[in-house]
Amino acid sequence: MVHETITLEGHLIDSDIMRRVFDRVVEDAGEFEVREFRVGRTNEEPSFARIEIRAADPAALDRILEAVRYLGATTEVGDCAFGPAERDGILPDEFYSTTNFDTYVRIEGHWVEARDQKMDSALVLRDGVPFCVKQAQVRKGEPVALRGPGIRVRPLERSRDYALFGFMSNDVSAEVNKGIVIRAAAREMKRVRAAGERIVVVPGPAVVHSGGEAALAGLVRDGWVDVLLTGNAFAVHDMEKAIVGTSLGVCQMSGRAVEGGSRNHLFAINAVNRAGGVRAAVERGLVRSGVMYEAVRKGISFVLAGSIRDDGPLCDVVTDTVKAQKAYLEALKGAGCCLMLASALHSIAVGNLLPARVRTICVDMAESVPVKLGNRGSMQAIGLVTDVGFFLERLADELKGS
Amino acid sequence: MVHETITLEGHLIDSDIMRRVFDRVVEDAGEFEVREFRVGRTNEEPSFARIEIRAADPAALDRILEAVRYLGATTEVGDCAFGPAERDGILPDEFYSTTNFDTYVRIEGHWVEARDQKMDSALVLRDGVPFCVKQAQVRKGEPVALRGPGIRVRPLERSRDYALFGFMSNDVSAEVNKGIVIRAAAREMKRVRAAGERIVVVPGPAVVHSGGEAALAGLVRDGWVDVLLTGNAFAVHDMEKAIVGTSLGVCQMSGRAVEGGSRNHLFAINAVNRAGGVRAAVERGLVRSGVMYEAVRKGISFVLAGSIRDDGPLCDVVTDTVKAQKAYLEALKGAGCCLMLASALHSIAVGNLLPARVRTICVDMAESVPVKLGNRGSMQAIGLVTDVGFFLERLADELKGS
Amino acid sequence: MVHETITLEGHLIDSDIMRRVFDRVVEDAGEFEVREFRVGRTNEEPSFARIEIRAADPAALDRILEAVRYLGATTEVGDCAFGPAERDGILPDEFYSTTNFDTYVRIEGHWVEARDQKMDSALVLRDGVPFCVKQAQVRKGEPVALRGPGIRVRPLERSRDYALFGFMSNDVSAEVNKGIVIRAAAREMKRVRAAGERIVVVPGPAVVHSGGEAALAGLVRDGWVDVLLTGNAFAVHDMEKAIVGTSLGVCQMSGRAVEGGSRNHLFAINAVNRAGGVRAAVERGLVRSGVMYEAVRKGISFVLAGSIRDDGPLCDVVTDTVKAQKAYLEALKGAGCCLMLASALHSIAVGNLLPARVRTICVDMAESVPVKLGNRGSMQAIGLVTDVGFFLERLADELKGS
Amino acid sequence: MVHETITLEGHLIDSDIMRRVFDRVVEDAGEFEVREFRVGRTNEEPSFARIEIRAADPAALDRILEAVRYLGATTEVGDCAFGPAERDGILPDEFYSTTNFDTYVRIEGHWVEARDQKMDSALVLRDGVPFCVKQAQVRKGEPVALRGPGIRVRPLERSRDYALFGFMSNDVSAEVNKGIVIRAAAREMKRVRAAGERIVVVPGPAVVHSGGEAALAGLVRDGWVDVLLTGNAFAVHDMEKAIVGTSLGVCQMSGRAVEGGSRNHLFAINAVNRAGGVRAAVERGLVRSGVMYEAVRKGISFVLAGSIRDDGPLCDVVTDTVKAQKAYLEALKGAGCCLMLASALHSIAVGNLLPARVRTICVDMAESVPVKLGNRGSMQAIGLVTDVGFFLERLADELKGS
Repeated sequence: MVHETITLEGHLIDSDIMRRVFDRVVEDAGEFEVREFRVGRTNEEPSFARIEIRAADPAALDRILEAVRYLGATTEVGDCAFGPAERDGILPDEFYSTTNFDTYVRIEGHWVEARDQKMDSALVLRDGVPFCVKQAQVRKGEPVALRGPGIRVRPLERSRDYALFGFMSNDVSAEVNKGIVIRAAAREMKRVRAAGERIVVVPGPAVVHSGGEAALAGLVRDGWVDVLLTGNAFAVHDMEKAIVGTSLGVCQMSGRAVEGGSRNHLFAINAVNRAGGVRAAVERGLVRSGVMYEAVRKGISFVLAGSIRDDGPLCDVVTDTVKAQKAYLEALKGAGCCLMLASALHSIAVGNLLPARVRTICVDMAESVPVKLGNRGSMQAIGLVTDVGFFLERLADELKGS
Repeated sequence: MVHETITLEGHLIDSDIMRRVFDRVVEDAGEFEVREFRVGRTNEEPSFARIEIRAADPAALDRILEAVRYLGATTEVGDCAFGPAERDGILPDEFYSTTNFDTYVRIEGHWVEARDQKMDSALVLRDGVPFCVKQAQVRKGEPVALRGPGIRVRPLERSRDYALFGFMSNDVSAEVNKGIVIRAAAREMKRVRAAGERIVVVPGPAVVHSGGEAALAGLVRDGWVDVLLTGNAFAVHDMEKAIVGTSLGVCQMSGRAVEGGSRNHLFAINAVNRAGGVRAAVERGLVRSGVMYEAVRKGISFVLAGSIRDDGPLCDVVTDTVKAQKAYLEALKGAGCCLMLASALHSIAVGNLLPARVRTICVDMAESVPVKLGNRGSMQAIGLVTDVGFFLERLADELKGS
Repeated sequence: MVHETITLEGHLIDSDIMRRVFDRVVEDAGEFEVREFRVGRTNEEPSFARIEIRAADPAALDRILEAVRYLGATTEVGDCAFGPAERDGILPDEFYSTTNFDTYVRIEGHWVEARDQKMDSALVLRDGVPFCVKQAQVRKGEPVALRGPGIRVRPLERSRDYALFGFMSNDVSAEVNKGIVIRAAAREMKRVRAAGERIVVVPGPAVVHSGGEAALAGLVRDGWVDVLLTGNAFAVHDMEKAIVGTSLGVCQMSGRAVEGGSRNHLFAINAVNRAGGVRAAVERGLVRSGVMYEAVRKGISFVLAGSIRDDGPLCDVVTDTVKAQKAYLEALKGAGCCLMLASALHSIAVGNLLPARVRTICVDMAESVPVKLGNRGSMQAIGLVTDVGFFLERLADELKGS
Repeated sequence: MVHETITLEGHLIDSDIMRRVFDRVVEDAGEFEVREFRVGRTNEEPSFARIEIRAADPAALDRILEAVRYLGATTEVGDCAFGPAERDGILPDEFYSTTNFDTYVRIEGHWVEARDQKMDSALVLRDGVPFCVKQAQVRKGEPVALRGPGIRVRPLERSRDYALFGFMSNDVSAEVNKGIVIRAAAREMKRVRAAGERIVVVPGPAVVHSGGEAALAGLVRDGWVDVLLTGNAFAVHDMEKAIVGTSLGVCQMSGRAVEGGSRNHLFAINAVNRAGGVRAAVERGLVRSGVMYEAVRKGISFVLAGSIRDDGPLCDVVTDTVKAQKAYLEALKGAGCCLMLASALHSIAVGNLLPARVRTICVDMAESVPVKLGNRGSMQAIGLVTDVGFFLERLADELKGS
């Protein structure tokens, strides 16, 4: 048998790190022996562990070590190794793939924090600093971090302010008292606002279908939204309602579908594109209400990402998905919290781009979207299974009552 | 009160046309009087109706007439009017918006069938023939059909071979005997094959997660698939499994997630892109099994459409969504039936592009996707709420037993 | 080939009768020829049809005739035949099984309307009048109607007041403007109130979990509820909240689960049972708020049906399910409309006992319950996929604004 | 501030006990200081902790102590206190409410293990031994354990055989490789069989609708089922299929609904009840296939619990829900594992009655049932979101290949 000693430091129990390390060792048929364990005596104090890990052969040991490094374990000292990108977008095979947790790279004996933290990226050295870079954006010859020693992640620690956010993280249930979660969301938005960070909203078309766009427009008007990340459909539905009073051809007064009524959808696209896009449509008085209207008036940034499902699309849409991903990334800088509102496609896209530390609230009628987001490893995601229109109306009430 | 007389012909009762015409009139506060009605005496004979419609004022009457024209009603005789597209992608405001039913345009006294039938398009005259053209593809100055007289749709008639497909159309239920639906799907695929039409398959990543990719690969190998329309994720999952034996980092032998295992996902993308794409990866022996492998070997066409959620993406992916939509459209020519397999995004994209007459089977674990597709007005869509892996294994058995 | 002529009368097209008759004939490999068809010329006028049906042999013809009789077809003249119940609860094998549509039985040349119309019952002659009687309640020797001639159903005709209820019947969708449906529900409740009929509410525990019990209590207090049909769980959750401020041990102020907190649930049962039941608990001041409190104060009737899942149960619970079904039936007399609120078990139980003509609104977070109810053949059921707490709050607002 | 010292022993990290203790203290605004912590050095060795807990006042401290006792904490030494039941079914207000974890009661200085462990029960002393007794079954004057010192629970420890069951416990996902879970289920059934324990199956009607009853009948025949716990509906569907070839009136050959076809459902009930019940129906040759047939032939025990939704019911049904609960309890004795198959009502009923240590696999098309079961605190429940018919067929294959 071969063995190696790892050390761990932090809220090892609260953050469930110890348990997961033990699990990984046993699952991969290894053995462990805790050589030293100092538990943090109070809620503030970190814990420390030194653990010997044994495995049947070096390959098995390497597998375990790689896994526990993702959990924050430090092993033998040594700088991170780098290899050059073979071509634009082509990584060396031994590349390290990032998580959404804060990551440190050991360079010439010093631990340097990676920038632009996001999951499923390469760590590329630019001007001596490691950046998280999506595969496609890595340029030929750039130094790419290789898996092995010299990379350390800091898994998210449980927030100390349990009352605010921690208490129900990663629970997904249709049978909770929604009012409590909505109050927590409002508190979080106020905290983010006070901290000078940005509030990102990712709305889907169901916001308009379910009649929630008036409340969302109010939030934008009242300054509670800094960034809108969505697609063509949401923007068109919102402006179709402003221009012709229907949503995908369903009259918003009577609830009746108009036969051939998706014509209204195309009509709205046509009118907005003729005007020259969303901003021009607002400025020329074509669109006089709704979320996009308030967004333009308030001057907040929005990105409309293209999808193969789109009608039109609006001339504002970024039809190239790689460019759209870049535009989302840019817009997410400085994000302090994120509301994902009934939009599976864009919510997961944003979830892929956010560091784990940004708190997100995902509202959807189905459990599957919050479940998927929760599986991405963020302890900071709340899934709320409810009607998005209702959520927005109540959230607006909460934010007013401040 | 103003009035106008319409005529209707076809399987007015079977196809539910009469009822919907009555509904529309009454809903819009109009009145009707059936002047003449000859019911088809047998299952083969068409019916004929002449109905006077009355409304309070000309605008109300126009609204009703426009609606019932979408149901196949013919009103006053007259050629279709056309107006020029103002600019590339900008239609005249009175443009007619298509359905997915067969459509006829009256040009100089003759009814001409529209080509490339699909929903939510403009009718553009090219070389004297009307084509269904997506808004964005209409060029400046092209004659665009305007709503009003001279356009007639033929709503889908109930299929006469009830036993095959008609009997359970538009029913969505998790509690049916799946075996029966799967047998019907197999019969339909054989019919399409015999008719020389093409079988289109739209698979999502869950095909791989749920272990169904082996069965789908078998279908491709055995010649049951002509076109694969999907995105980056499905192709990567399928090839990740072929290359490293995991699916999104979950080991397909043990079911365990590998910590940091989405690295395998990126690894597969990297390897395939280094090889030069899907075809090259198969030809060089990097990918030796799975759906993409069989697709390349069999030489069938596939289109991978980009999405903002994508990792990588593979260099085969069409990242521009407008171009991807065009590529899907091209690939759908000659389609005789379509299997939509656990892929919400691409299924709805394909549903938007198919004429109603193409029979589709939509398999998903959630009711929402089949419900959405069913709401698009095709009487030819079967929604099956079940496990896609199971569906594919049983479908393969059925097709073998022929 | 053998043949027989049937006649049909009513809104044969609006109510979709003709289409379904044609379908049945063709599905069972028969043929039809429409001998006479007079369409109702206006919205008010009934239609009339005389149709010859042909089949390969008498058995096949009988199968078709039985099916179309369920659609309202009249065949050869003749009185209904009766056979005696063999024993208590044991019917003669040829018994006729009822639908939830109004049914007429031909006795000595006269058509007599059945009483207590409900589905899946026997038709039993009591004092010369046919009653719908559940299998288990039929007594030995009672005359039970046999299938064959002499029984006629009147399928529900589409309501003429489309604007009120008809327009979206049997649509189930999470993506509608909920406000419109809620307004329709409020109008319907006012109509029922004005007509002197009773409003039945069937609430599930999720009403309390989602914080909707305050709004429902308000509806009871304001006289909008005549009957509460539910089970042990709803009543206990509601009173647990009144007594100790939690719902199944989850604090309703903080949203936190109390470790071992389902003790509160048992505590509430214990306290109420010690007091002598729900009424006594209210009268003695133990329960001072909530739905049960208002129900007792208002003197409306409630039935708590037992289930094998129950804790306790409360001493008010009817633990025998056959007796509970009888108690529900009794309480449903005079029902004009029914709200089913997030309670799968009791909603379906009530759906089984109501005639099709009673309008129901089924609110649930999942599509499966409304879909199941819709499959029971009532054109009068609206399924609304939304948060029940939200629904109740908005409904209360609508009803106040009258 | 007041304080108290607790001790904990066991796999405190693996079993997530430490983290939850810390959480509870902080959530209730207390503070803790770890006085001593000895971590189990290897996978086999237990850990030990001594923790001082501080709170603002005695009431707050008591709340925390009660909560952590549910997590296995031992506090001051002292015997358990008992109070007499006031009346039949009425407990003293300070009663202790059980969990589904093994529980020990300190009586005259000795820790005695409670019998019949199940959740939400009272601990009643009978012949000096503590039993878990449902509220309604407690008799006047019996000594009931009061909350406070002298009661200790042993939370479930993570199973050491991770590969078998532990690895995916409490994960609920539609996107897993089902084959792996099914193989694990088969291994577990073999383990239970080898250990001489009993295999309990809880099937719902969807087993029959989805065509899985043949596979389940095979499992019964091959000796893989010891107990069937279900309701009227499953048994009737199963026997309706055996007698007339339909399931709730849907032909199982063609998939077509028979108009008025729920008559077949009533017909089957009538025929079985005439014969004298399920056993007699099998013995007289009325029922010649299906699950109930095999159950009778094999002589395994089954309990049919009544529900207010029932047609009929069969004369075998226990219509009183309190009696049915008792019958379930009796039948669950000696259970080693439990398969819950698409039956929300009965699955949750059984989940309420099982000790946490019994491993359960819950198969359902919707995520909500497995999620609900998982929330009951058993680390031993696997939720599998898939088609139950498929699950049974594949499980049968796995069990054969032994």
